[in-house]
Amino acid sequence: MISRAALNPRVLDAEYAVRGPIVQRAQQLERQGKQIIYCNIGNPQALGQRPLTYLRQVLSLIEYPELLDAPATRALYPGDIIKRARLILAQQPPGTGAYTQSPGLPFVRQAVADFISRRDGIPADPDHILLTDGASKAAQAVLQALIAKPDQGFMIPIPQYPLYSATLTLLGGQQIGYHLDEGNGWQLNEQILESSFTAARRARQNAVGIVVINPGNPTGAVLTQDNIEMIIGFAHRRGLAIIADEVYQENVYRPGSRFHSFARVLTDLAEREVTLFSLHSVSKGLLGECGHRGGYLEIRNAPVDVLAEFVKLQSISLCANVPGQLATYLMVAPPQRGEASYHRYQLERDAIFEDLRAKAEALGAAVNAIPGMQVEIPAGAMYAFVRIELPVAGHRTKSRSGDALAEATAREASYCMALLEKTGICVVPGSGFGQQPGTLHFRTTFLPPRDQIQALVDRLGRFHQSYLRSQKSALPRLRRSARSDATGCR
Amino acid sequence: MISRAALNPRVLDAEYAVRGPIVQRAQQLERQGKQIIYCNIGNPQALGQRPLTYLRQVLSLIEYPELLDAPATRALYPGDIIKRARLILAQQPPGTGAYTQSPGLPFVRQAVADFISRRDGIPADPDHILLTDGASKAAQAVLQALIAKPDQGFMIPIPQYPLYSATLTLLGGQQIGYHLDEGNGWQLNEQILESSFTAARRARQNAVGIVVINPGNPTGAVLTQDNIEMIIGFAHRRGLAIIADEVYQENVYRPGSRFHSFARVLTDLAEREVTLFSLHSVSKGLLGECGHRGGYLEIRNAPVDVLAEFVKLQSISLCANVPGQLATYLMVAPPQRGEASYHRYQLERDAIFEDLRAKAEALGAAVNAIPGMQVEIPAGAMYAFVRIELPVAGHRTKSRSGDALAEATAREASYCMALLEKTGICVVPGSGFGQQPGTLHFRTTFLPPRDQIQALVDRLGRFHQSYLRSQKSALPRLRRSARSDATGCR
Repeated sequence: MISRAALNPRVLDAEYAVRGPIVQRAQQLERQGKQIIYCNIGNPQALGQRPLTYLRQVLSLIEYPELLDAPATRALYPGDIIKRARLILAQQPPGTGAYTQSPGLPFVRQAVADFISRRDGIPADPDHILLTDGASKAAQAVLQALIAKPDQGFMIPIPQYPLYSATLTLLGGQQIGYHLDEGNGWQLNEQILESSFTAARRARQNAVGIVVINPGNPTGAVLTQDNIEMIIGFAHRRGLAIIADEVYQENVYRPGSRFHSFARVLTDLAEREVTLFSLHSVSKGLLGECGHRGGYLEIRNAPVDVLAEFVKLQSISLCANVPGQLATYLMVAPPQRGEASYHRYQLERDAIFEDLRAKAEALGAAVNAIPGMQVEIPAGAMYAFVRIELPVAGHRTKSRSGDALAEATAREASYCMALLEKTGICVVPGSGFGQQPGTLHFRTTFLPPRDQIQALVDRLGRFHQSYLRSQKSALPRLRRSARSDATGCR
Repeated sequence: MISRAALNPRVLDAEYAVRGPIVQRAQQLERQGKQIIYCNIGNPQALGQRPLTYLRQVLSLIEYPELLDAPATRALYPGDIIKRARLILAQQPPGTGAYTQSPGLPFVRQAVADFISRRDGIPADPDHILLTDGASKAAQAVLQALIAKPDQGFMIPIPQYPLYSATLTLLGGQQIGYHLDEGNGWQLNEQILESSFTAARRARQNAVGIVVINPGNPTGAVLTQDNIEMIIGFAHRRGLAIIADEVYQENVYRPGSRFHSFARVLTDLAEREVTLFSLHSVSKGLLGECGHRGGYLEIRNAPVDVLAEFVKLQSISLCANVPGQLATYLMVAPPQRGEASYHRYQLERDAIFEDLRAKAEALGAAVNAIPGMQVEIPAGAMYAFVRIELPVAGHRTKSRSGDALAEATAREASYCMALLEKTGICVVPGSGFGQQPGTLHFRTTFLPPRDQIQALVDRLGRFHQSYLRSQKSALPRLRRSARSDATGCR
């Protein structure tokens, strides 16, 4: 019989904190009847966000095309939705029932190219676009294709979304972390990039690319145009490809902040050397269609034979799921002014945006009012990366860095587990994303219903104070058990 | 800029003939207006097979739950379908909109366990079941988890479905081929398994598992219970895990043939050592829902901590797409006798089965009537692996085996490309699946509409004769160009 010890060590080593032991405990508690508030993952519809109606209407017709011929359908669906469904079926007669071409349905890839052109005022080529099962699969494909040797790796932000670290572990590639500047709204800093790159090279870790998540996960930061120009310049000098994870591009809330795509800035700079992989998804934005696993990968500055390898890689799993491909199509080609669905679409969209904006602000402000907690009010995305102060931290920063890291990991895990047990609030320890040594964080989404945010943060504040008190009284005991907690968190 | 030469060599080396250069050429010809008959891939709905209505009805309601409250809906959907949709939404209120737990929706996993129990009369545990994006992703996960070192690999049938060879190439694992016995209806032969295993071990290729595809792809063979018992015994003696690719379990046409699951035979034998990974999919069977990318992986004889690693691996990509999970649910929990949908379901299902059965027979018989072609009439699955005789073969079998292989590959590719160009029929060269040295094959599906099968095979027969004539007259020229054709086929 197979034993765990015989499995691929890379699989054993891979960690994905967003779905780690804290979440597993939450599911266990939920089965026992406890109410859990899942703030561990950006899964808006699980927390009550409604889908955009037009998208679901079209999908429902495509799933059951007989409806198109039934007179009763005209009472149930707006005319433009029926027309749109017919248009899709004219392009792809088997609808959701058949494998598509490996890179995805041609008319959807064309629509994605049109969307990029409209968004950025730049040309886009459908032959450089692949439809994927969510952005995760796109990111994994790029890492898999680009890491050619064990000494090669990607620069990834700290904190980062653990898809990147986990995938690099699975591929046996190097993780070359660069710290985001918490003191400067989590922007990237050229000096930090340079020193991270060169220190890695001295350690024989050769970066072939850099991952940038904008708007940021878990930071909620939105990069300025200057910052993006700097990153492209750095990638050019150092011969790096860029993965621009832009799945939160519609989630920009802070007045004055704006999403700038890497594709547009690259084009503005007339940069023709840096290969750019841009990711987008139906799971975030204002759709929140996480269950549909739709997304795309756009590739710029890459020769045709490289594109062909990406298509081949995708062909081995045949193609992305077709409802997800169609959700991607509907994301990039929403109802237009003058169409029957347009008004409802705008109302729903605006309401979701305003809800997210208000929740980012409300959660951020309320967290900052808790003594011992501090957060950059999220300018974008769906998360707050909350810094916490726990009294033991000061005592331990002098220990060796590996020990200090293990201890921070253990303390965060204990904290988040206690939070879950006491309050039902499920968040992810900062160590799952990475952080500056000596700091402690957790990531929470701000997705629970708006009228519950204040109560949620109140509960968080009360827990924090009581946790601090319990820690102070239990200090000697805690030190003894820190190491075993660390194991539980992996 | 990234160059092809800098990419991961494993990605460059991976080959997936089912979507290779012949298919790419077919798509090109199609864009130029030529009518193509895609017999390269088991994609039934692309060739006119209708979906099962109940499945699509439920999915359409889940995509747009507002329908459930509209009075007009009762005119459009049978009562049991509406009830079923409500049941699903009661279990999973966000429907298709949210990520599920990493291994998939609990009620769907329970339904899969119930299905296995009903099918086989054996216990099944939902905690040992993961819902996946089609069976391909399940197979890839198993190979990824089990190959721990570069000298390890899997025994795979020859001919095989190239998902396995491609994934092993991507993982850097060993491919240890074992030949299926073409002379004995493509059954497995214990002596061949043993000698393949030991020869590999002498070459420091250590098998950790064996892949069995039953019913067979591309062979169309259905394994007997004796054969399965033999394989389990072999796996036990040699300490191998088994991947039982059973996606064609409903596609058994030959009178007297019957599908035996590895899970049932394992249980009958009270075999508790051999770890078994069983795959199933919504893409095949009588559903043919390829675009929905749904499937499951069932794991037997594995400790809890091994199961946990599979869940973690899946968590890195969050979860399988939810419409696919629900399609899997509907596959394993179809309408029951007494429900309003039952009659239509039975009629549709029976019609699809009879259609496939008749086409397997008709295509097989007609192919066997062509001089120079020979095929085992498919007992199951969706393919015929047709052996072809081309006159040059005899002259070349004396050359070195590497050369002979390259030449066979080139000759098959030329043949299949010419078939495509002359007739629009798109098939896959046998080399894409593997075959006995000195033999030549192609794989075709028997999925085109029934009334077109005879005309299709007639066209194939006429092409074959004219190709033979052209080859004989062009023999010297052909020899010169064989090598460059080989490159085109990779």
